Amino acid sequence: MSPRVTIRDVAARAGVSAGAVSMAFNDRPGLALPTRERIRAAAAELGWTPSQAARRLAGSAGRIETVGLVIARPARQLGLEPFYMEFISGIEAVLQERSASLLLRLVRDRDQEIAVQSEWWRTRRVSGSILVDLTEDDPRIPALARIGMPTVAAGHPGLAGRAVDAVWTDDAAAIEEAVRYLAVLGHRRIARVGGDPALGHTAIRTRALERITAELGLEPARTLTTDFSGHAGARATRRLLAAPERRPTAIIYDNDIMAVAGIAVAAELGLQVPRDLSLIAWDDSQLCRLTHPTLSAMSHDVHGYGVQVTRTLFDVVNRTSVPSGPAPTPVLVPRGSSAPPGA
Amino acid sequence: MSPRVTIRDVAARAGVSAGAVSMAFNDRPGLALPTRERIRAAAAELGWTPSQAARRLAGSAGRIETVGLVIARPARQLGLEPFYMEFISGIEAVLQERSASLLLRLVRDRDQEIAVQSEWWRTRRVSGSILVDLTEDDPRIPALARIGMPTVAAGHPGLAGRAVDAVWTDDAAAIEEAVRYLAVLGHRRIARVGGDPALGHTAIRTRALERITAELGLEPARTLTTDFSGHAGARATRRLLAAPERRPTAIIYDNDIMAVAGIAVAAELGLQVPRDLSLIAWDDSQLCRLTHPTLSAMSHDVHGYGVQVTRTLFDVVNRTSVPSGPAPTPVLVPRGSSAPPGA
Repeated sequence: MSPRVTIRDVAARAGVSAGAVSMAFNDRPGLALPTRERIRAAAAELGWTPSQAARRLAGSAGRIETVGLVIARPARQLGLEPFYMEFISGIEAVLQERSASLLLRLVRDRDQEIAVQSEWWRTRRVSGSILVDLTEDDPRIPALARIGMPTVAAGHPGLAGRAVDAVWTDDAAAIEEAVRYLAVLGHRRIARVGGDPALGHTAIRTRALERITAELGLEPARTLTTDFSGHAGARATRRLLAAPERRPTAIIYDNDIMAVAGIAVAAELGLQVPRDLSLIAWDDSQLCRLTHPTLSAMSHDVHGYGVQVTRTLFDVVNRTSVPSGPAPTPVLVPRGSSAPPGA
Repeated sequence: MSPRVTIRDVAARAGVSAGAVSMAFNDRPGLALPTRERIRAAAAELGWTPSQAARRLAGSAGRIETVGLVIARPARQLGLEPFYMEFISGIEAVLQERSASLLLRLVRDRDQEIAVQSEWWRTRRVSGSILVDLTEDDPRIPALARIGMPTVAAGHPGLAGRAVDAVWTDDAAAIEEAVRYLAVLGHRRIARVGGDPALGHTAIRTRALERITAELGLEPARTLTTDFSGHAGARATRRLLAAPERRPTAIIYDNDIMAVAGIAVAAELGLQVPRDLSLIAWDDSQLCRLTHPTLSAMSHDVHGYGVQVTRTLFDVVNRTSVPSGPAPTPVLVPRGSSAPPGA
């Protein structure tokens, strides 16, 4: 097909205006059926599709102008968790260097995400996309691989599979480091306030926690799952501390805002941190250094993670290298919220 | 009327630029009355109306697929302040209802923003844009009005002028409410940790604070400005509390993360909140309810603000109403961090 075929050529062959061609392909009312059919026939003869037109419109052949990100969470929740904003700030840092933009869309569910991503790719509104919140047997992976959309998954290759490139953090190793640290301090009863149980990385952390506590001969660790919000983190902390079973002496949180809420719940219950309760946050945004006591954390450079994922996507689109690889493993940053129990 | 009549045809017939046609139909100042009348006559002769043109230009006849947002801040900072994420979550809530996306771009400065917005509009990658972080004599306003780009400014009409529609919060009234409340509690020495001094709303709040403290016969209020980050908020709080002049008994913050930092600095200095120091946050994300004590705040529904700005942009693009208008004024939500001094 000639790259020079335009909507005008189709219009000329069908004997209509360019506007009519656009109407026919956008399924607008106002065209008689025979006209519509004549237009589609003309387009087929010339090998013209609207996506090609859109591709040309998207401009400057080959340069990445736009990267896509679809998030299947309620809009409200997006504003409540530091992770996304830090991750997006990392994406934008790379895009800013390269004068590119982020096309951001919130959707209801995975099926809608597949529809949106497919449409973006068909019409070349984006040069590639970043996948987040991977689940086990994630249906997006085969769907996007099938249409050939350049994609990088922010998630473990055990979830991303071999069909797409991935950048991941070793959550199991990080959980192990946190638990070994607490065990050395003398904690035997560790609990966890986890994230969304549907997400693959939540399950990876849960399994790692169970394995390592068993290995170290600690009491079985209890995990309560949440939607990652501070309120849910506060509720889960209250449940853990008020449970009829004996209270944990240390809690690991799956993000930082829930750990901030945990400090407030401890104060509310008259427990002193870290004497009565040690707390370890995850992700380590600036929040962890603004609380009193400051929060010990499994420090994860989320901004840097966004940077690495986006650089990898550029590599995938430009086919410049073999890009899958791990991001730095979160490292323990001990601060004021962790100590030997009773100390 | 032929679907092929464009703004350029109207411009040619009237002997003016396309920009002048846009100005005439958007009731922008800067055109002589006879020119304006000549343009309107030319459009009437050709059967051209701006809404039709806008509809056609926006791509798939009429439907808004993409809204633009350009932010002139370092990427890193984007992840550090809850305001943007809440605001974007509000934008996305409206876009999600209407199956539209947000095109997000970070730039160095205003000039680069003007270039990006103009390019987006020229190539119709967006149907319209949202302007944030207005400054006095903001150069973006005349630049985007000139090219006829549908725009809504999130900012005071005193900053946005008459050339673009605006949605704003009455920051001066909110400052007044906060100061009157603190004065009733018995505070006479109030300080403020403000945001970026280059931003228009920071200046509006500073002027309002000076006016109301003078009106109430309180000591002149000191404002230290920051980049809105928690760290800068902590530093400013230390400076205010360690100043040789007598210490303020109450501090108003321009966002919430700086107030969270303020609580930690008070604890670090051995000051008890609210007995020794009252703190009032601004914006009131969930953070304010997760600290101990909880933070009193000028509660601003930032998510709702993003919703209203975006709905207004849809109205502007679709010309469905006269859209400029105020968003709800932030309201005082007293919580645990404010009390009479010494109480």
